[in-house]
Amino acid sequence: MTLPPPLALTMGEPAGIGGEIAARAWAALRESGPAFLFLGDVALLPGIPTRTVTEPAEAAGLFREALPVLPLPLAAPVRPGRPDARNAPPVIAAIERAVALALEGRVGGVVTNPIQKSVLTAAGFRHPGHTEFLAALAPGDGPPVMLLTAAGLRAVPVTIHQSLRSAIESLTVERIVAIGRATAAGLRQDFGIAAPRLALAGLNPHAGEDGTMGTEDRDIVAPAVAALRAWGIDARGPYPADTLFTPQARAGYDAALGMYHDQALIPVKTLDMHGGVNVTLGLSVVRTSPDHGTALDIAGQDRADPGSLIAALRLAAELAAHRQRRECP
Amino acid sequence: MTLPPPLALTMGEPAGIGGEIAARAWAALRESGPAFLFLGDVALLPGIPTRTVTEPAEAAGLFREALPVLPLPLAAPVRPGRPDARNAPPVIAAIERAVALALEGRVGGVVTNPIQKSVLTAAGFRHPGHTEFLAALAPGDGPPVMLLTAAGLRAVPVTIHQSLRSAIESLTVERIVAIGRATAAGLRQDFGIAAPRLALAGLNPHAGEDGTMGTEDRDIVAPAVAALRAWGIDARGPYPADTLFTPQARAGYDAALGMYHDQALIPVKTLDMHGGVNVTLGLSVVRTSPDHGTALDIAGQDRADPGSLIAALRLAAELAAHRQRRECP
Repeated sequence: MTLPPPLALTMGEPAGIGGEIAARAWAALRESGPAFLFLGDVALLPGIPTRTVTEPAEAAGLFREALPVLPLPLAAPVRPGRPDARNAPPVIAAIERAVALALEGRVGGVVTNPIQKSVLTAAGFRHPGHTEFLAALAPGDGPPVMLLTAAGLRAVPVTIHQSLRSAIESLTVERIVAIGRATAAGLRQDFGIAAPRLALAGLNPHAGEDGTMGTEDRDIVAPAVAALRAWGIDARGPYPADTLFTPQARAGYDAALGMYHDQALIPVKTLDMHGGVNVTLGLSVVRTSPDHGTALDIAGQDRADPGSLIAALRLAAELAAHRQRRECP
Repeated sequence: MTLPPPLALTMGEPAGIGGEIAARAWAALRESGPAFLFLGDVALLPGIPTRTVTEPAEAAGLFREALPVLPLPLAAPVRPGRPDARNAPPVIAAIERAVALALEGRVGGVVTNPIQKSVLTAAGFRHPGHTEFLAALAPGDGPPVMLLTAAGLRAVPVTIHQSLRSAIESLTVERIVAIGRATAAGLRQDFGIAAPRLALAGLNPHAGEDGTMGTEDRDIVAPAVAALRAWGIDARGPYPADTLFTPQARAGYDAALGMYHDQALIPVKTLDMHGGVNVTLGLSVVRTSPDHGTALDIAGQDRADPGSLIAALRLAAELAAHRQRRECP
């Protein structure tokens, strides 16, 4: 019997909750799977049995007994809640190693624990964020797309980490179309949805009410919807954002595109704070991550909720299976 | 035994669902109350017993048997889904009459069915909206405040019906403080909350992350929070908007202030599409309304959901009772 390759889980910020939730996720998943491999320092995993491995293939067979660890030792001692820039190199190395293993097919996908970007930046990290770093390591055909999932909802912000004012300025037909096409491609490839239905939110209240409350919906979002349809994608909108996330509305689409960060993230986090998952579509590897930060304020207190990481591991396994079926029919 | 005064329910747009949901709300509330009075044309109330009254005081005693109607006959026949500007005068008269009765204390509060603003505007109505008209008829000490309620959440948009771009432009410390003070006053007066806790959302993603993603949170929202606190109000923030509406976060405040329409309305409608209520604080009368529009597309088909109107009637009765307790201790 051939077991599917395990997933690679990076340690993330060592002073955060990454180790704690990894240990809890292993305890929750050791019987059912999916099997995963921890890339990081074994000292971050208190209270559970661990086993050092050198090859990912060893992981699946021993996952029930212990959490397999591919060791990346830290340079400085860990003080929960107090990141140390001396540990930035192994934190970055864990991400690079996980992606390399995925590109070689030795792991099924990459699940990343949250990083503390300011610490990495201080140590010389030159990428705007986690996702951009992954896109540099494993680029796909289009732009990387951040997709958030929660109970019954998939949402994609077209613009992300920029001020609301600059998000409006940078909204163009081209950008929306590029994100929409990459979203549709990702839903087909990784989620196994043959003909994805996209719903686009309007930028303005009531989607601008025919241009009487802002012209961007008429002049930018509506033409983008038309262009996506011309590409053969079942895109609709712009819809008023406030009623786009009701259960009835959600039943009508496979993913909603929000025009800015909070428009997409408010409904996801309001519906499902602890089970939300962040998926990066458009990379050449499968990547998910929990939908929360490093939680430095509660690190080391053994009270972090592993729900989002567990959901991220389960979803990564599903996406990897879909992708493998497409590649090896 | 003295019965509390009934509520006044306006007919709203006759071609919409106002009559249907009024009839259903009466059927749902006839046993339990609160008693209300329909201000409009009796022809809008098919299938239920009605009784014409001339005095609101007659309503409470007969409410179990029939829906009391204070007649305001329409000028043109009603065709569901097709508003007729000839009916604008009685639609407006119903609102004026309801407010007059509330100012005289002959009804406990005003509940308004949705209007079709474009139709009224075409007939000479000169107010930007329903709320502004009510504020002209029954002004309070401060600005009128739109508060939306849903399961476990009260949310107030600081800016409302304007483009997102202009909402950002018009955000000032003064405006936020005025809305915050009026919200706190309304929660005290109408909701009976002695020391209301307000949570202010940041305008930008992550509340601007110390000014690195937009400066408005640092330069406008934070000073407004400080000013509200100087006024003795328990105001906090700015908080990242995406995590402000989780159950855990909601437990920490009595009302959240969103900086723009969708930031406040997305969580309300995502959580509770059919039970949401729109409350106008800061008027000299109690006013609630259902949190939906005229629904011209389904009018006359007897399938409109009366849930939000029923919730609006129940809440208006509660608010009226709180207000009366304060006025007559």
